[in-house]
Amino acid sequence: MTNKVPETMNISLLNKPLDMEIREVKVPQIGATDVLVKVMAVGVCGSDVHYYEHGRVGEFVVEKPLILGHECSGIVAAIGSEVTNFKVGDRVAIESGIPCGECEYCKSGQYNLCPDVSFLATPPIDGAFSQYISHPEGFLFHIPDALSYEEATLNEPFSVGIQACKRASVQPGSTIVIMGMGPVGLMAVVAAKAFGATKIIVSDLEKIRLDEALKLGATHAINIKEEDVSERIDEITEGKGAHYAFETAGNPTALQNALSVLNNGGTLAIVGLPQQENIELNIPFIANHEINIVGIFRYANTYNMGIEMLTSTTADLKTMFTDTYDLNQAKEAMEQARTNKSGSLKVMVYPNGKPE
Amino acid sequence: MTNKVPETMNISLLNKPLDMEIREVKVPQIGATDVLVKVMAVGVCGSDVHYYEHGRVGEFVVEKPLILGHECSGIVAAIGSEVTNFKVGDRVAIESGIPCGECEYCKSGQYNLCPDVSFLATPPIDGAFSQYISHPEGFLFHIPDALSYEEATLNEPFSVGIQACKRASVQPGSTIVIMGMGPVGLMAVVAAKAFGATKIIVSDLEKIRLDEALKLGATHAINIKEEDVSERIDEITEGKGAHYAFETAGNPTALQNALSVLNNGGTLAIVGLPQQENIELNIPFIANHEINIVGIFRYANTYNMGIEMLTSTTADLKTMFTDTYDLNQAKEAMEQARTNKSGSLKVMVYPNGKPE
Amino acid sequence: MTNKVPETMNISLLNKPLDMEIREVKVPQIGATDVLVKVMAVGVCGSDVHYYEHGRVGEFVVEKPLILGHECSGIVAAIGSEVTNFKVGDRVAIESGIPCGECEYCKSGQYNLCPDVSFLATPPIDGAFSQYISHPEGFLFHIPDALSYEEATLNEPFSVGIQACKRASVQPGSTIVIMGMGPVGLMAVVAAKAFGATKIIVSDLEKIRLDEALKLGATHAINIKEEDVSERIDEITEGKGAHYAFETAGNPTALQNALSVLNNGGTLAIVGLPQQENIELNIPFIANHEINIVGIFRYANTYNMGIEMLTSTTADLKTMFTDTYDLNQAKEAMEQARTNKSGSLKVMVYPNGKPE
Amino acid sequence: MTNKVPETMNISLLNKPLDMEIREVKVPQIGATDVLVKVMAVGVCGSDVHYYEHGRVGEFVVEKPLILGHECSGIVAAIGSEVTNFKVGDRVAIESGIPCGECEYCKSGQYNLCPDVSFLATPPIDGAFSQYISHPEGFLFHIPDALSYEEATLNEPFSVGIQACKRASVQPGSTIVIMGMGPVGLMAVVAAKAFGATKIIVSDLEKIRLDEALKLGATHAINIKEEDVSERIDEITEGKGAHYAFETAGNPTALQNALSVLNNGGTLAIVGLPQQENIELNIPFIANHEINIVGIFRYANTYNMGIEMLTSTTADLKTMFTDTYDLNQAKEAMEQARTNKSGSLKVMVYPNGKPE
Repeated sequence: MTNKVPETMNISLLNKPLDMEIREVKVPQIGATDVLVKVMAVGVCGSDVHYYEHGRVGEFVVEKPLILGHECSGIVAAIGSEVTNFKVGDRVAIESGIPCGECEYCKSGQYNLCPDVSFLATPPIDGAFSQYISHPEGFLFHIPDALSYEEATLNEPFSVGIQACKRASVQPGSTIVIMGMGPVGLMAVVAAKAFGATKIIVSDLEKIRLDEALKLGATHAINIKEEDVSERIDEITEGKGAHYAFETAGNPTALQNALSVLNNGGTLAIVGLPQQENIELNIPFIANHEINIVGIFRYANTYNMGIEMLTSTTADLKTMFTDTYDLNQAKEAMEQARTNKSGSLKVMVYPNGKPE
Repeated sequence: MTNKVPETMNISLLNKPLDMEIREVKVPQIGATDVLVKVMAVGVCGSDVHYYEHGRVGEFVVEKPLILGHECSGIVAAIGSEVTNFKVGDRVAIESGIPCGECEYCKSGQYNLCPDVSFLATPPIDGAFSQYISHPEGFLFHIPDALSYEEATLNEPFSVGIQACKRASVQPGSTIVIMGMGPVGLMAVVAAKAFGATKIIVSDLEKIRLDEALKLGATHAINIKEEDVSERIDEITEGKGAHYAFETAGNPTALQNALSVLNNGGTLAIVGLPQQENIELNIPFIANHEINIVGIFRYANTYNMGIEMLTSTTADLKTMFTDTYDLNQAKEAMEQARTNKSGSLKVMVYPNGKPE
Repeated sequence: MTNKVPETMNISLLNKPLDMEIREVKVPQIGATDVLVKVMAVGVCGSDVHYYEHGRVGEFVVEKPLILGHECSGIVAAIGSEVTNFKVGDRVAIESGIPCGECEYCKSGQYNLCPDVSFLATPPIDGAFSQYISHPEGFLFHIPDALSYEEATLNEPFSVGIQACKRASVQPGSTIVIMGMGPVGLMAVVAAKAFGATKIIVSDLEKIRLDEALKLGATHAINIKEEDVSERIDEITEGKGAHYAFETAGNPTALQNALSVLNNGGTLAIVGLPQQENIELNIPFIANHEINIVGIFRYANTYNMGIEMLTSTTADLKTMFTDTYDLNQAKEAMEQARTNKSGSLKVMVYPNGKPE
Repeated sequence: MTNKVPETMNISLLNKPLDMEIREVKVPQIGATDVLVKVMAVGVCGSDVHYYEHGRVGEFVVEKPLILGHECSGIVAAIGSEVTNFKVGDRVAIESGIPCGECEYCKSGQYNLCPDVSFLATPPIDGAFSQYISHPEGFLFHIPDALSYEEATLNEPFSVGIQACKRASVQPGSTIVIMGMGPVGLMAVVAAKAFGATKIIVSDLEKIRLDEALKLGATHAINIKEEDVSERIDEITEGKGAHYAFETAGNPTALQNALSVLNNGGTLAIVGLPQQENIELNIPFIANHEINIVGIFRYANTYNMGIEMLTSTTADLKTMFTDTYDLNQAKEAMEQARTNKSGSLKVMVYPNGKPE
């Protein structure tokens, strides 16, 4: 039931920090419940850049050559004998993490907390800078014609924003502050809007990112190089504060500010990972105002809803794709993402050439 | 519709730190929806002791003589013209805080967050070291015969434990760690048991408190002077960690420990107020394990359920009442609570003499 | 602190079924926490029509002349001595129900279930077909300039839709079926969209209503005179069924259909009141598919969020106001709403003339 | 890694209604992630009796000989090569349903709604009237020494009660009515108590069942042959009604009564499956009182918590086991369960002889 799948393919390997190369390898075999996906687009994530630059992210160390890339979409090239939901030619978004399916977290719907998850481009699991990958049927999702391959890759960072909105129980008509307008922050704006937030206040120190946030649905943008965040939020909310605050950049000061702008009963979502482990938080403030804090780790059960939301959003997501590269330019893509010289928003790699 | 209410009564006044006196004043007038309660028992709370010793708690300062005491119960002595739920002679528990009833917090069921709440024994509002108090009908609750006046006063600290269990969504069959076995911690044990927790691990540095906790339903007690809390919890939970951890003592180290013993998706309730404002928390731990943190401020909608639970608990609450005093011994009561020479659990004051 | 308030005003009285008259009465006095509102717009609701036609709705009987109208907005004409949130000249939406504030339902945030609620235009409480009304500050809400008085009156039926979405926990990216496109059904479309539903399937038997629904955000409209509802929903959802179904018309067949189109774990909201008491439901279907059913009775805590949502919606609400009348034409307004000759959507009455 | 496992074993087969026989077959092979369990105790469920008597339950038809029994526990006899949580000799409870693990229901924690679940003793899947069964590791649970094999089998009907309590969000201190005191109703009493309900009112028409309910934690028992259920509940709740009502017997009148005794905002759980499909419910009552109705279908994520709760309950569960049989008496066991001559509560079958 396969269809014109070649025997070999190209992959882009990270050998060691800053050292990437293209190699030709065999196209992977697929199991009975797996799907072979021809990868059409891969977004570069901050964690990819971190592996590229430092060879590690926290406890995860690149000990042997690794294929990067986990924000990806493609087209079904072959299916295993027991696959029923997909056929060759289907356009699909790929959910990056494959949990064990059996532990208490998996069984209770929190599979992102599964201790045995295999996550693309997290050592020692290879990622999607590859012309083909094998992926289990259960973690693939149909994408409608209205959504391009590039847009479908956004479902991955978008899922983090959705996870934050779900865990923070963002309600329609509410006021939310989102600090840090990198791709995750930007997609969190789209998520907050889809959850019905009506005041979406964002902060960053780069104008290009704030402008993009406003295009995507933010109602107020604060440039922290020019304005005092707390004062501005106080003004915008007429002294009431925000119902929700997300910190997406891993910045300690932003985290403390995000906490401080909440009103009674408000909720802080910790999305960004700071470099340092311990950060001081105002504990009496948390107690006296019955603040809720939720940690965010990846996502679970967001892909279907994410695709629905991306398909129906009025935001123009194409403005996110500032830089595009072919697979053999993967190193240039990583350099652009790392140095961010020309103000990139999202860097995209095409393992099989730019889709038409 | 009144019944043998005298014209004057005794109150115990805190003039300034460590200076208390008995004074005779007029019995208060009641409004149409108010009830005059003859106060039968008042438990001494840590905040009472703090006002007694320091003349302030955080931003609340004793600027004129104040009546202390807010954990109280009594008997209805007179009712206002529009009161329908109570009659003279009814035994009642008194909910200490009276919210505005009109703000968004009041209307949405979070009246503990009402910015205009009047809370007994919180300056400038007088408390219950008084033979009679006037209280609105809506914040009084019938107590069944099976519950003594003393036990009914426990509904106040119990309510804090219930609020923590509610906000942490404590589930039956779960494992909870409660740090700090003062009265709030002890009543949190009773609450956790009522919410169905099956492993209730407590820690403190006083044996008398740990013993009481075991009597009230704790399954494991850790004396932090003798054992390493984290190691013991790891042992008890077979490396899995706890679903919930409550910090009730305001101790920074306990708070950090409480966070660290949680399993993936676990919830930390911050119940105790630390002296210092800023405390370092492990932020990557919160994010990577999708921890939830909930601040606890007093309670809302706990009194009815609290009375039901106290009435049906198998725990022997009477062991809590280690020290009892008449109103004219209120200063001795405060001194006992302050110095805690003989290992008090709960100090009780009887404004109208010891009930039979 | 009053401002040019006359001594007398006109009201429209329903004397008995089909018998209405204008009368001149004194402008009401206001209490310390009340606000005198000059009523600028009043939408006619189905219950108004029912009182007008039958003199009763269920147990509520018009026993003495009654002022109809409860979907209303206006301008502050005077404030009580303790009012702090409003000043003369403020534009306000009026929440119709005033609960007791003290019962367990009020205290727990479910004040719509308060047994002692006073609800405008529900006998014996007068409504808003009146040039001025007195209303407690806590149930008035500022309306922004962007929202007209007419649009602000929609916050009342909109609140019913919001209540249904809240109680059904409508999630972003979901599929919802709404049966019955009267004003409540139409506003439920706006609510479902604000809650992020991406497939909003509506059904009715009048084309004008279905067309309006599509304008307001419905994605699929089913004319039940022409198509089989279940078949169409099966087609649209590719056999998966809907996550949510709302029945808003009180039609037994619609209710049974609404239940039947749900997928596993789906939720049915019963919004419309049927004439007959008992309706057959498929019980094994409810059990085997773990269906949730929620009854909807008015609303609580919806006004603030409703105004935020109406202000930011992209739906053109003005298309709802098909018929407008002055107060002295109130009977004509009721007749138009009752007979619905020209396909009315919402009939509006202006107690103080059409606002500019 | 196996241990003294014989090559053949006995099973009890239902050939056709009322026709059962013992047969000797090969002990099943296990896969890499499976466990071979020596079955020590199997409780007889109403569905077993229904298959035995009628050869079908709803759409599920016994088309070839079937092994009955799904409430079971045992001892690990062998483990697959990838099994890590169990070793030979471990005592285990067996969760009866094995879901697909990949569909949206499985991934979101509602695996009981998985359309591809394999459930023991549901045609064509064989059950546990067998000396050994193979079962996947992920659906086995350690049982502590304090719990007997018989008690561990109760975790299955108990799980239905837990599922109902979870879906109804039973809160501590609440009032619950449970109608029907068959094994599921009785275990729902234990569950309601573990969830903290303080008034547990039960009804049935057999005294032996009501007596058992009182032993297990019910606070009030109503014999519907002697008393009017609604009147008694009204009395017991002082006119307030119940927060929750469970119908466990599939009786239409009980279901209607269960609905009618709820207070405002109360929740009805439909646990029992009625013979007839359509039952009349009072729709205006559901709407006007904002009732919640939840259908219950088996359970998900209840086994761990169930074992914790059974281990710590003060209820004497042994009183449930009124009738015990060896495997070769399986037909007698079924007859006893079917005819219930001597007032059985739970009939138990021992595939490997009575455990010591």
